[in-house]
Amino acid sequence: MNAEIIAVGSELLLGQITNTNAQFLSQQLAEIGVNVYYHTVVGDNSSRVLDAIKEAEKRADLLIFTGGLGPTKDDLTKEAIAAHIGRPLVYNEEALKSIENYFVKTKRPMTPNNKKQALVMEGCLVLANDHGMAPGMMVKGKNHFYMLLPGPPREMQPMFVRYGKPALLDVLEKVEKIESRVLRFFGIGESALETEVEDLLLAQQNPTIAPLAGDGEVTLRITAKHESEETALQMIQEAEEEILRRVGEYFYGYNDTSIARELAERLKETSHTLAAAESLTGGLFQSEMTAIPGASIFFNGGIVCYSNEAKEKLVQVKPETLESYGAISEQCAIELAENVRSLLNADFGISFTGVAGPDKSKGHSPGTVWIGLASKHRETKVFKLQLVGSREGIRKRSVKYGCHYLLAELAGDK
Amino acid sequence: MNAEIIAVGSELLLGQITNTNAQFLSQQLAEIGVNVYYHTVVGDNSSRVLDAIKEAEKRADLLIFTGGLGPTKDDLTKEAIAAHIGRPLVYNEEALKSIENYFVKTKRPMTPNNKKQALVMEGCLVLANDHGMAPGMMVKGKNHFYMLLPGPPREMQPMFVRYGKPALLDVLEKVEKIESRVLRFFGIGESALETEVEDLLLAQQNPTIAPLAGDGEVTLRITAKHESEETALQMIQEAEEEILRRVGEYFYGYNDTSIARELAERLKETSHTLAAAESLTGGLFQSEMTAIPGASIFFNGGIVCYSNEAKEKLVQVKPETLESYGAISEQCAIELAENVRSLLNADFGISFTGVAGPDKSKGHSPGTVWIGLASKHRETKVFKLQLVGSREGIRKRSVKYGCHYLLAELAGDK
Repeated sequence: MNAEIIAVGSELLLGQITNTNAQFLSQQLAEIGVNVYYHTVVGDNSSRVLDAIKEAEKRADLLIFTGGLGPTKDDLTKEAIAAHIGRPLVYNEEALKSIENYFVKTKRPMTPNNKKQALVMEGCLVLANDHGMAPGMMVKGKNHFYMLLPGPPREMQPMFVRYGKPALLDVLEKVEKIESRVLRFFGIGESALETEVEDLLLAQQNPTIAPLAGDGEVTLRITAKHESEETALQMIQEAEEEILRRVGEYFYGYNDTSIARELAERLKETSHTLAAAESLTGGLFQSEMTAIPGASIFFNGGIVCYSNEAKEKLVQVKPETLESYGAISEQCAIELAENVRSLLNADFGISFTGVAGPDKSKGHSPGTVWIGLASKHRETKVFKLQLVGSREGIRKRSVKYGCHYLLAELAGDK
Repeated sequence: MNAEIIAVGSELLLGQITNTNAQFLSQQLAEIGVNVYYHTVVGDNSSRVLDAIKEAEKRADLLIFTGGLGPTKDDLTKEAIAAHIGRPLVYNEEALKSIENYFVKTKRPMTPNNKKQALVMEGCLVLANDHGMAPGMMVKGKNHFYMLLPGPPREMQPMFVRYGKPALLDVLEKVEKIESRVLRFFGIGESALETEVEDLLLAQQNPTIAPLAGDGEVTLRITAKHESEETALQMIQEAEEEILRRVGEYFYGYNDTSIARELAERLKETSHTLAAAESLTGGLFQSEMTAIPGASIFFNGGIVCYSNEAKEKLVQVKPETLESYGAISEQCAIELAENVRSLLNADFGISFTGVAGPDKSKGHSPGTVWIGLASKHRETKVFKLQLVGSREGIRKRSVKYGCHYLLAELAGDK
């Protein structure tokens, strides 16, 4: 079954709100194996709504509408569909009662236009609104199903989950389960990763593998369809194993995690503690670590040594080091990492020094980054990066590389 | 001129991401008087993309596409449009160079599929991508304008604002000048602010005044239309003066600034320096200060004293203070602010201690926050907040309050 999601509301076209309903419904429909090929947003205008309906009927079996069920003049979704499929509107007693009760409860006078909300299409399945006044409905036309849902997410979401989704499952002859899993990678570019798995991307129809890039990371979403959930998951598992066999070294986690969160988890699991000394990242790394609840278990603290004075006074970097090599140097990164580790008596000390830009600093171009990694039991490591992009991008990616290196170090401990 | 916004990307139809691009572009187009009657979302499928284009051409003069300009096989927007309007794709030298430079700079091998990103439609206006590799473009077909923009918001938004919007203004025959200015407020709630200016919100048709709230801030957008830019600006000026007459004490800046940026500017102007000691905010304040280019001029550095050990060792908080009052106390906030100021020999020292949550800490409920403000020439001040919300929200708003208090202190210096 193919569906099109049609949001009705001029406020969407004016950019006053985002169409989160389309995202929510798309996720819900994917779960029950309904394909969504189009989202449409149209304003509160009868003729344009009618055009959108006619167009959608050409390309979908199920039309799901959000918005335009309210009491005001420009709420016209229901009227437009009823007229189009030739169904009279009739008052729904339950809906009418609950609307009247609503006004009794809130001690407000019920204006006549509110009664309009209790009108439903004759012979439709009424979807109760447990969080508002306007009921939803599902109706079968000659060749299509039409589902009408309210616009406000807090009314629409529970209505769809409790009443709309079960109603759809009833009409779906056979439900194909769709399972999906996201693999997250860091340290490899989108196209480089795609080259590694290109044959899989092309070959596979089921499961499908879709790459997505952003913020210096790449993800691969594996999606499998099958009547049996177990088989679908098995198909995903096999695809995942093949992918990790090729690019596993860059893999760091599943679905909605982040590399900072993975690092935090690994530190907790291995009961290691961490301290940080940040120059170019200016506290961003520590801010990401402490964003994680319970951070005090693994994060002792650290220093934002933005000035040379701070590097000397707070992290005891030797003046000679700053004189002979400068702050943006391997030597400085090493001292920062080692000193902050011992100052705070942590298992690991990490340091960031370099140039975030936009301008050069001391002859070094923006994106020149040194990351020091000191550990209680091993020799200090130091990494050099040459990043490109905005000041913000360079800072963010430096932090992610820091997490990446420390994760690798912890993996070595296993 | 009527526009349709077409987002291309299966990830949208699977509900993996929300179509925020459509909202952003709708706002931008409304500002320059372009009507948007439809949003469409279509997957990475040539024939369905083509259908969407044909449908949009029936109902709009301008088709704006987001997504599908990347290096991978399922990036096909450009190819579909070029084939449809019969424009050959040619390599754009500048784009090619910048892509090659990107790989040279990052010392990563450039895989062949990346070259694809430098292909543009013959005779189009190329829109440079200052935050990524794939350039955008605008091209005039027989009866329509087509604008292609990348999918990632951090690439698309600056590209549209810097290059796309001006290009559109050029083709709009007669533009009624639409000028708009955002006033930013902190320290007052949305409804409280709305009550103060309610009559203005209701009365005004031109200029219009639209409130927007988020992240503990409130903004008012004043928008005026007139053939003469000068008159439009004058109308805005008058509205602004009336608003500031009523709620000026909470006003901190215009348009896209942030309270952190305003603080940085004020510190630069008054040549003051700053040091920070952060407990619950864990480096977030310092990270925001150092996000500003040239931060080293006014920011000496600081300490993330997440543990009591760090408070004692690095900021020399007296053990007695921590024993008798605890870390979440007025006394600790004061010592942190005063000690970090003198440690780094700065004009001001700011400190943050409290509970970000989600759980209680040492008997204090989440949202309990102490902010200390020490200055070279004045008595130390300390502020107590009782915030509500998520861990992230509490951390963010604590940082904003810190900026707010320090801005007030600096205003006192004038």
